[in-house]
Amino acid sequence: MRWKQIETMTCSVARTLSVVGDRWTMLIVRDVFLGLRRFDAIQHDLQLTPHRLSDRLRKLVRDGILRRVAYEKRPPRFEYRLTEKGLDLYPLMATMTRWGDRWMAGRAGAPVELVHRPCGHAIMPELICPCCKSKIDAREMTARPGPALKGRGLPAPDIQPTRRKIARTSAA
Amino acid sequence: MRWKQIETMTCSVARTLSVVGDRWTMLIVRDVFLGLRRFDAIQHDLQLTPHRLSDRLRKLVRDGILRRVAYEKRPPRFEYRLTEKGLDLYPLMATMTRWGDRWMAGRAGAPVELVHRPCGHAIMPELICPCCKSKIDAREMTARPGPALKGRGLPAPDIQPTRRKIARTSAA
Repeated sequence: MRWKQIETMTCSVARTLSVVGDRWTMLIVRDVFLGLRRFDAIQHDLQLTPHRLSDRLRKLVRDGILRRVAYEKRPPRFEYRLTEKGLDLYPLMATMTRWGDRWMAGRAGAPVELVHRPCGHAIMPELICPCCKSKIDAREMTARPGPALKGRGLPAPDIQPTRRKIARTSAA
Repeated sequence: MRWKQIETMTCSVARTLSVVGDRWTMLIVRDVFLGLRRFDAIQHDLQLTPHRLSDRLRKLVRDGILRRVAYEKRPPRFEYRLTEKGLDLYPLMATMTRWGDRWMAGRAGAPVELVHRPCGHAIMPELICPCCKSKIDAREMTARPGPALKGRGLPAPDIQPTRRKIARTSAA
């Protein structure tokens, strides 16, 4: 399969990656979340070629993640803002931050702290089950076909139960 | 900047992407979470060339996400299992699933349902603040320099407060 075909997979991970899975794209989204909205600012921060940055920004606008907004009329100048669909990538960014802080930061500690303004604490957002409110543990999760895959089973040619335990660790 | 240099950025998102940000890598991780542990099974599912799949698996082992375990001695055959570090990518995968289900699934609905075994419900994991337990809303989050960036400020050359509101939507 070619990368451009992944959005045709019946898989939400693949579909998400078809939007934000290209190199640099999530770092551009991160910059916009941090308040960098202008081409020059993002380019300065990521040190990308103008061609590459234009290409990614154009795709993010086309995919409905960013909106191009004029902030000056003469000469016409634009900045990029997150749409609702783009803003909804925050959990993805926060989850990447948490993983990087935990496994990659080393002794220098976290580069950035995320602060929850309503309660005032620097936090690492936590994933919970909305039904029973307990913290999600990968070992306690299973996957089964949803509406779009009913009758077709999960993509797993070596084992074929319709329901299976998701995670097996090396310790299992 | 070149992609191979992103792990040198003082940024947890960049560091996470240096491990799982390459094309196909998160789909391989997804397959292992779904129980596909063997080279042939993953290759069959993703239709990758053996060379490309070997390359990604080797990197995932080197980065400590997967562990190569012999399941047969003669002839020697191996499968791949998630380490603790790899298992901790579950929140990332679940968050991608949630975003894809919400924005990309269309009328056919979700491809896969995630079931929380302790309570038995098909759920979409939710991101909460571990302090006040409320649901995370990107508009209510701010970022500030953590220990590794103390005194250096956040990477945002156009606006320079040490603390800033993270998200501005197009509606803002």
